[in-house]
Amino acid sequence: MAKISSRAWPPGMRLAPQRELCRQLGVNRSTLVTALGVLAERGLIEGRRGGGTRVTAVQADGKAEGAKPFGNWNDYLEEGTHYPNLPAVQAINRLEYEPGLIRLGTGEPAPGLLPGAAMTRVLAELAARPLPPLSYEEPLGSPSLRRAVSRQLLKSGIAADPASILITSGALQGLQLIALGLLPRGSTILLEKPSYLYSIHAFQSAGVKFSGLPMDQGGLLTGRIAAEALRTKAAMLYTIPSFHNPTGIVMDRERRQAVMEITGELGLPILEDGAYQELWLDSPPPPPLKALDRAGRVLHLGTLSKAASPGLRIGWIVGPEPVIRRLADIKMQTDYGASSLSQLAAARWLDGGYHEEHLTVLRGKLRERREFMRQLLQAHFTELATWSIPAGGFYIWLSLHKPVPLRRLFTAALQAGLLLNTGDLYDRGDSRHLRLSYAYASPEELSRGLPALAGIIKQNIN
Amino acid sequence: MAKISSRAWPPGMRLAPQRELCRQLGVNRSTLVTALGVLAERGLIEGRRGGGTRVTAVQADGKAEGAKPFGNWNDYLEEGTHYPNLPAVQAINRLEYEPGLIRLGTGEPAPGLLPGAAMTRVLAELAARPLPPLSYEEPLGSPSLRRAVSRQLLKSGIAADPASILITSGALQGLQLIALGLLPRGSTILLEKPSYLYSIHAFQSAGVKFSGLPMDQGGLLTGRIAAEALRTKAAMLYTIPSFHNPTGIVMDRERRQAVMEITGELGLPILEDGAYQELWLDSPPPPPLKALDRAGRVLHLGTLSKAASPGLRIGWIVGPEPVIRRLADIKMQTDYGASSLSQLAAARWLDGGYHEEHLTVLRGKLRERREFMRQLLQAHFTELATWSIPAGGFYIWLSLHKPVPLRRLFTAALQAGLLLNTGDLYDRGDSRHLRLSYAYASPEELSRGLPALAGIIKQNIN
Repeated sequence: MAKISSRAWPPGMRLAPQRELCRQLGVNRSTLVTALGVLAERGLIEGRRGGGTRVTAVQADGKAEGAKPFGNWNDYLEEGTHYPNLPAVQAINRLEYEPGLIRLGTGEPAPGLLPGAAMTRVLAELAARPLPPLSYEEPLGSPSLRRAVSRQLLKSGIAADPASILITSGALQGLQLIALGLLPRGSTILLEKPSYLYSIHAFQSAGVKFSGLPMDQGGLLTGRIAAEALRTKAAMLYTIPSFHNPTGIVMDRERRQAVMEITGELGLPILEDGAYQELWLDSPPPPPLKALDRAGRVLHLGTLSKAASPGLRIGWIVGPEPVIRRLADIKMQTDYGASSLSQLAAARWLDGGYHEEHLTVLRGKLRERREFMRQLLQAHFTELATWSIPAGGFYIWLSLHKPVPLRRLFTAALQAGLLLNTGDLYDRGDSRHLRLSYAYASPEELSRGLPALAGIIKQNIN
Repeated sequence: MAKISSRAWPPGMRLAPQRELCRQLGVNRSTLVTALGVLAERGLIEGRRGGGTRVTAVQADGKAEGAKPFGNWNDYLEEGTHYPNLPAVQAINRLEYEPGLIRLGTGEPAPGLLPGAAMTRVLAELAARPLPPLSYEEPLGSPSLRRAVSRQLLKSGIAADPASILITSGALQGLQLIALGLLPRGSTILLEKPSYLYSIHAFQSAGVKFSGLPMDQGGLLTGRIAAEALRTKAAMLYTIPSFHNPTGIVMDRERRQAVMEITGELGLPILEDGAYQELWLDSPPPPPLKALDRAGRVLHLGTLSKAASPGLRIGWIVGPEPVIRRLADIKMQTDYGASSLSQLAAARWLDGGYHEEHLTVLRGKLRERREFMRQLLQAHFTELATWSIPAGGFYIWLSLHKPVPLRRLFTAALQAGLLLNTGDLYDRGDSRHLRLSYAYASPEELSRGLPALAGIIKQNIN
């Protein structure tokens, strides 16, 4: 009732279905039914034929407000140029904060793998000297962090002047800025299929189309790039060459060279997503495309989210200075720059050697988890699916022998307490893949969740 | 030359004019000319008739790359759906980080007014206990920060459940999310004229049009709201009722009541920007519109940027839960949430009483600065302009007796080391206002800068 009188539930708002309300309010069905009965009796809500239950137009004191009750937020919710997330992604975003679910595909390190103690030391270091005032940072981001990122990039072979680096709120914001700032509506991006990019709406909301290209275990197949680029008048090629999301594949050295040559002939810019490149577990991947870039044709994205701290929201874009300045201008318009506290902590994190030290520890733990998942898959999935063991990153791309209705599988798994990242998030037409992550769920959860998942898949094969 | 071989200056890039290059590189004209001569001799740059100077298509080793040199970033820079900032705003954003300029209109507290020492204590408090892992936060933002914001809002009369609060990266991001999430292309927003909103592109880039309404010393004039809303089929009314940016005006209590009644009749939602409402200097302003909102019709924006710390990038939107969830979904797509470190610090900042304590100190210092500026204006501007002394916020809106070409004034002032926020940023047709800020420049800078400004204005009156 407080929700109605404080107008968090405004007059005219449609209530969610009862099952959903129980979940939201954390009450059981019979409590809810009683409460709704009381609200209806007081005239605060009303049922409408075919329209579900709505909040009636009343004031906090019980009288109707004015002549025209305001109930048209419902219309506004369907307006706006930005697409909503896919329903499945919305569900995942919300459900990830529900306690008790086993998250089998989550793309971040488990809290236990994050460097809590080291980050506390970083904060203590920052607090030991008087803080610089937390003013707005320069449009490109704090100079000290850009210098630190420049030094870090050199380790993977990328020589980048701090003036050619833009600090972003995670790599996701980098994608958003590029979508808004460099590509006209109606242009086309070539990309691997499946790809992480299909699961987000940064480009589609900006009116950019996708054209997916096939991959094999050596990465993007280069044979069709030229024809497809010409056919679609492509504006850009997006690729995740190292520990690809969702497949875990590494583009091999020859393929990287070929991609650079073919796109060089075409004059096609490349957007290289390096989010996972530091997370090698067996041996470092070949140098990033940006390290091979002689023409200033590659934009390179990096992030601290995958290895060090998703919550810091620190990523970067490397590219030619005029491009970086254009993107910085849009960033200033979007949020006026990343948190200066996060930037301060990130610079100390990189400069203080914490990052390298943490990567060594994290790699060891991820290797153990990868091996643990490998054994579980071998024990429970050999009849159902095939998979490859990735050389780094977080993901195992499970290929089911037989197609399964993935939305139905998602729902069935959720009822059993398992949260899945199904293949259709990364390739709309897919019906036989799951993205599994060994980075998030605990070994104990995996040893309960994966056998349960195998059972649910068996039940849902057509 | 390093800029060229690292491809930060890619082949085909147009170089900036020489004066601009001197500034960017921090060298004098003769050094630059010598350097450009060396580059041209080595064939690294070339002049083109009518096209300025460009980087030629060469490899780091001096050979031309492939058959087709890549030089078309220039085209990409003119693409994209998001408008660039106004040239004057771009210049301001860049110049604000140039040392030595006196910033007479900057909308943030001077570094010396920011609570550096208190923020260091907050960090020390955070570092004294093991940090929670810095994972992604919930889509709406950290629950503890939302509870703290809810308690803070109650002080200004707004009762907001934490589930109806979305944490954003500053209030600017709130505007961006609303523009992308709730308004279709081609819709119209009513707003005060002049307004801060004219100086940013969040709404225009989303295809939203503006219709400005006049103000007097009591705030927005309400007489034309209804007719203008019907004529334009307005989707929303944007207002800054307390310490309006750029005029400093406070909407009086009766006017607030009238705005609520008129828009209530029309069923018109309100976007209330409360960025400055805590910064009263004489007495608190009347309660915000959100506190009068019986119908869940007002979205309210708040921020820590103006009083406590621009660099934390913490703001919030308060509104009906379905609206907040829609905006949170877009935020997840945009940057996956605000920095969790900033959120942690902000929650401690509010809960630990630091905020209230700092506000008391800040109000005292702003009062002194306001008085200092008042005296300088009286001494140097009485023949040139009129102004009102605001009851809070940062700004004095200087009304020149005679029109002045404001772009020319901006340039002339810049040459004298003064950075101005001219009236045309806030009302495109304006030619007789300046937004002065007593919050940023030091008293010493003000006592040099304001007399100098008076002289420059005199020279530029037509």
